[in-house]
Amino acid sequence: MQKAPILLATRLSPKVEAQWQKNLQAMMPEENILTLNQIQVRRGIEMALVANPPSGVLGDFPDLKWIQSLWAGVENLLTDKTLPEIPICRLIDPDLAQAMAETVTAAVMAFHRDFDLYKSQQQQKSWLQHPPVFARNRHVTILGLGEMGRASAAMLAALGFSIHGWSRSPQNLQDVTCYHGEDGLRQSVDQANILVNLLPLTEQTYAILNRDIFQHLAPDACLINFGRGAHLVEDDLLDYLEQGKIRHAFLDVFAKEPLPIEHLFWSHPKITVFPHIAAMTNPVSASKVIAQNIYRYRQTGVIPVSCNRVLGY
Amino acid sequence: MQKAPILLATRLSPKVEAQWQKNLQAMMPEENILTLNQIQVRRGIEMALVANPPSGVLGDFPDLKWIQSLWAGVENLLTDKTLPEIPICRLIDPDLAQAMAETVTAAVMAFHRDFDLYKSQQQQKSWLQHPPVFARNRHVTILGLGEMGRASAAMLAALGFSIHGWSRSPQNLQDVTCYHGEDGLRQSVDQANILVNLLPLTEQTYAILNRDIFQHLAPDACLINFGRGAHLVEDDLLDYLEQGKIRHAFLDVFAKEPLPIEHLFWSHPKITVFPHIAAMTNPVSASKVIAQNIYRYRQTGVIPVSCNRVLGY
Repeated sequence: MQKAPILLATRLSPKVEAQWQKNLQAMMPEENILTLNQIQVRRGIEMALVANPPSGVLGDFPDLKWIQSLWAGVENLLTDKTLPEIPICRLIDPDLAQAMAETVTAAVMAFHRDFDLYKSQQQQKSWLQHPPVFARNRHVTILGLGEMGRASAAMLAALGFSIHGWSRSPQNLQDVTCYHGEDGLRQSVDQANILVNLLPLTEQTYAILNRDIFQHLAPDACLINFGRGAHLVEDDLLDYLEQGKIRHAFLDVFAKEPLPIEHLFWSHPKITVFPHIAAMTNPVSASKVIAQNIYRYRQTGVIPVSCNRVLGY
Repeated sequence: MQKAPILLATRLSPKVEAQWQKNLQAMMPEENILTLNQIQVRRGIEMALVANPPSGVLGDFPDLKWIQSLWAGVENLLTDKTLPEIPICRLIDPDLAQAMAETVTAAVMAFHRDFDLYKSQQQQKSWLQHPPVFARNRHVTILGLGEMGRASAAMLAALGFSIHGWSRSPQNLQDVTCYHGEDGLRQSVDQANILVNLLPLTEQTYAILNRDIFQHLAPDACLINFGRGAHLVEDDLLDYLEQGKIRHAFLDVFAKEPLPIEHLFWSHPKITVFPHIAAMTNPVSASKVIAQNIYRYRQTGVIPVSCNRVLGY
């Protein structure tokens, strides 16, 4: 019996979707990867590879067994009521965690060595030295200790920073002082110089970056939001930047992306705007991870570890 | 017999000199540290602690045995013909090497994760993602493998960068591909993505950062000059930035410091200007190192390892 094709359903640009299709196909020569437009027979299709799939389309595949996201963040999938009640797997790519750790480290180091202050001084042609602080005297708190949080913590700990971490459930990590639960959240950020958010977006983490948290930070703190735009209460951040209690923010994610031209984050002198690049999915390494998931499923019928709809990630 | 005082001779501001005196005195309660103005009897004084000492004054101390610099860079001392022919010791402070490694790492990471590109895009409110490169695929070359170069190489190697290093004499370092000598220089920078200069300033290294070296770099390269201003041929850098062959330069040191207001580096969009902060001497840790040198000398008569006037550092 011939194997049914695998569906690739995205709302990416045709060019980007075609590139994904090419990469996936190259990693799985024994499979037939077809986009929504290319598929003629919907019966028998067991797997869908998705990136922002058009709403409602997956319900038309009666034999679908599981859904694989091309990305790590799956909050849109898990809250999409039109999706069939089948396992949803998010992308777990070691290269993605490595990319995130590198970007987190770059932002932490830039703030740590006062690059924001020197940039603004350069605009004023001002030659003024600030006393350096050693990494060992900086308290960095990471919210979220999944693959990305753990990789970031390990890299920053190797540079000598004092690392604190917070997660939903208890964790025990080398070189990280771990906290969990609601009380643990406040403790974990208490006197932090640099706060890094890498949490998944769930009902519990929505708007978690707000003044209740900011008030516990050390003076002249730094906020790095590489999670999701909806984690941040924008007005609270603007207040704290205005008052000088937070010195600088690095934001990679926004309530609306691309960040609208009229948004005042673009021109705020204390905000660095990144266009959602902290951990960009690499189609080549992601396709390899996905091909391994599919190969294992074809061999054994085992669906990869999937997301928990109650927890939301 | 009472010990003679120790001379502190600087051209620092009175406030900064007083702070040094206080720190040094606190680390050496058994010694008497006096500034040029405070010293009455010049005979018997064996040690001078100096930072840009006024020209000619040290020749007036007939019993001077050795000179300790408060700083790591001693090119001005070694070329000062008015200094007596006695050993000159430069500051070798592990904290200073650590500070330099942290600043080098911050600059390397900022370039590596395209912060310069995103900064300039932010000014234009442009949302454009650049494909990331992993640290393991970046070739970083460090010129100068003294305490600071070695500490920087170790930190960058820990982050996964591919490290190449160049020094006057052969070295053998873990995780660093080492080159030496004139031929080795070109080889070491060949196809480098990021070039970091931490060399001492000597006759041999004067103007070493010039187009003959730049032409060997990979396209879209980065120059980090944390050595001395006189290492750099400014017009060659400006040409290479203009042609887009060098994408960005981080400069911490300049031919004249503070960098004059009219200098075009201040407003160049592809140059980050730092006010000589890459590795600022920490008066507390430096005073501790110097106190140890002096204690050992008082106990044993042994002068600390000193600079080589022929090599120039």
